[in-house]
Amino acid sequence: MAVQLSRTFELFERAMRVVPGGIYGHQTPALLVPGSYPYFFARGDGSHVWDVDGNEYIDYLCSYGPIVVGHCHPAVEEAVLRQMRDGNCFNAPTPLWIELAEHLVELTPFADWAVFAKNGSDVCTWAVEVARAATGRRKVVKAAGAYHGTHAWCSPLPAGITDEDRANVLEVPWNDLSALTALVTSESSAIAAIILTPFRHDAFHDSELPVDGYLAGVRRLCDQHGIVFILDDVRAGFRLHLGGSGEYFGVRPDLACYCKAIANGYALSACVGREAFRNAAQDVFFTGSYFTSGVPMAAALACLRTLAAEDGIARMDALGRRLCEGLDRAARAHDLRVTTSGPPALPFMSFADDPGQSLNRVFCAAMAERGIYLHPHHNWFMSAAHTEADIDRTVDRAEQAFKIVAAER
Amino acid sequence: MAVQLSRTFELFERAMRVVPGGIYGHQTPALLVPGSYPYFFARGDGSHVWDVDGNEYIDYLCSYGPIVVGHCHPAVEEAVLRQMRDGNCFNAPTPLWIELAEHLVELTPFADWAVFAKNGSDVCTWAVEVARAATGRRKVVKAAGAYHGTHAWCSPLPAGITDEDRANVLEVPWNDLSALTALVTSESSAIAAIILTPFRHDAFHDSELPVDGYLAGVRRLCDQHGIVFILDDVRAGFRLHLGGSGEYFGVRPDLACYCKAIANGYALSACVGREAFRNAAQDVFFTGSYFTSGVPMAAALACLRTLAAEDGIARMDALGRRLCEGLDRAARAHDLRVTTSGPPALPFMSFADDPGQSLNRVFCAAMAERGIYLHPHHNWFMSAAHTEADIDRTVDRAEQAFKIVAAER
Repeated sequence: MAVQLSRTFELFERAMRVVPGGIYGHQTPALLVPGSYPYFFARGDGSHVWDVDGNEYIDYLCSYGPIVVGHCHPAVEEAVLRQMRDGNCFNAPTPLWIELAEHLVELTPFADWAVFAKNGSDVCTWAVEVARAATGRRKVVKAAGAYHGTHAWCSPLPAGITDEDRANVLEVPWNDLSALTALVTSESSAIAAIILTPFRHDAFHDSELPVDGYLAGVRRLCDQHGIVFILDDVRAGFRLHLGGSGEYFGVRPDLACYCKAIANGYALSACVGREAFRNAAQDVFFTGSYFTSGVPMAAALACLRTLAAEDGIARMDALGRRLCEGLDRAARAHDLRVTTSGPPALPFMSFADDPGQSLNRVFCAAMAERGIYLHPHHNWFMSAAHTEADIDRTVDRAEQAFKIVAAER
Repeated sequence: MAVQLSRTFELFERAMRVVPGGIYGHQTPALLVPGSYPYFFARGDGSHVWDVDGNEYIDYLCSYGPIVVGHCHPAVEEAVLRQMRDGNCFNAPTPLWIELAEHLVELTPFADWAVFAKNGSDVCTWAVEVARAATGRRKVVKAAGAYHGTHAWCSPLPAGITDEDRANVLEVPWNDLSALTALVTSESSAIAAIILTPFRHDAFHDSELPVDGYLAGVRRLCDQHGIVFILDDVRAGFRLHLGGSGEYFGVRPDLACYCKAIANGYALSACVGREAFRNAAQDVFFTGSYFTSGVPMAAALACLRTLAAEDGIARMDALGRRLCEGLDRAARAHDLRVTTSGPPALPFMSFADDPGQSLNRVFCAAMAERGIYLHPHHNWFMSAAHTEADIDRTVDRAEQAFKIVAAER
């Protein structure tokens, strides 16, 4: 199928001259399928995006998470415009600083306070440092392969990182409570924090939900050994539960980190925490040029209120289920076995017996060429702006794409 | 002098309940003078800001740097609005990604590429990692007391930081080329980078310009020993020269880091670099949820073009000189000796024989009460939106404030 991407390639060639790699990080074209995917976008509206060649897509990446009520949602944009008229960035916060902190504390059953920053990486790393300050210990336990940002202690690639950066990091396999118990028992007096995502959503891997008792077991271990339980809810936060993904999975951490869906694409991240860690939180230096800016906080309040008013959480769950069921049905019609994984609001699909996800590349490329933006190696994101018609059209296109995969296999 | 700050205190009490310390980081009220300064802002326009009690100030902090063409500058806001209509945050960049990278490369004589992030801290730390990747060495040299962000290797406070975080950091006194030469000579095979601000602008200290030959000497040492010269231009960038503060001081680094003034308050930071470091830059993982967002890039292009069109650099220099001369004259009229320091666009003033800057607290408090927002311990920032009338009014108020200081002393 011919897809017109000439402007994408023209721009990418220009980008390669002035940006190392052209586009870096999680949006690098290296993770996509050349010739089928656009590399630059022109505009978005609700659940749809348009690339620079004018191709329209139903957007199931949602900017890798931030867009949760749809591109250019009027309630969010209006709140942003209102704040812009007064200004954005001052010598001190605007009153929205308090309003948003109060709102997060109200939404989150275990939280007594909130702080704000710009990147998910900012708050995950700061939370670990707060745990160190609170416990007087150094080590942090994470799941092997889990992504918690680009700070040196956890960056997924080794270039530029020293052994010292990783000296205090311990890893255990996700979902393995006995491995974690063994580690904690032997090292407990050194462990400041356990940081976990609410479910396993590593790239190049099916998503994996916590097994029964896993997160409760982590909570118990932390309580027994005086370890701080940090929930890295950067990716899943506000897609599963407005009180944080811990509520969805039935666990309450000590600190929880948010970014992505908090402000529908305006630059904001947050960490919320329990009273017991307030002093440590006050002691660990944390700041940035734009940490107190008003515009992203206006966006966040509007985004979170819109999610509540439009019952966005239930909606994303229902739409995600409809999508997964439709894909599963369409695959079976072509004698293909697919696995849909993750919570429905952050679904992912892979093929059975496709270890390198190469069939998924064929499938996702065919979908991209048909105006459906999925990712072959990274979980997808539903938004509250998706419609039943979007899903049905997606499943219709999937029938064509599965046919191509079946022929390829 | 009675200043009405009741709403500030009301809000701060509320903030204290839901944010550790109420307001943290460089904007903490702990660095200001209680009872004289507002802690929350309602709006800004040009060079003026209004606090939540309705008090108006001439703003000489400019949000600690970001506001460089004035609050709510129409050209910047219009560019932002235009991009907002199309959307902000997508699965990949907008064409502004390229346009801005090309613009920075064009502005900067030594730069062949640019990358973008959200915080000054992001780019300073990433630049050090790029230097490590390029050289295969671990150590980084910085000036003692210099601020390069909140990442663990350089955060100014110890809470939450481990010895390992600082294991590869070496410090030398600012402006001391022989100390630096001695260190580099003894450790050269281990040193990946020297990171310096273009002038010394540490808080609680007079600003200090590089002595003749210092920056050229640093450049020479780096060339001789294969060390990467990183200019941390986060604070001064685009206030002294559009090609970076290195051009102002006559030195060309290998990598330069920007934030603050780049986008007039919209969340963006950048690093520009030489061709020789393109591969290393591509290897060091760098990403964030909002790194490719279009709105801040639209703001940056408009901000940098406005600075050029309005001759903002020359304007800030001239206004800063007028301010410093006026303050000096007014002080002498009260038999007070003050030191104005730093480049005129980032001026600072202190009193002779005032080691704890306590007279400066008296002075700045009196100024705040008279509608002039200065800082007793941190350098100030001019914007291109300041007017001669602003300066003259400031000097007039300073005459009253110096009288109070003279009485106090």
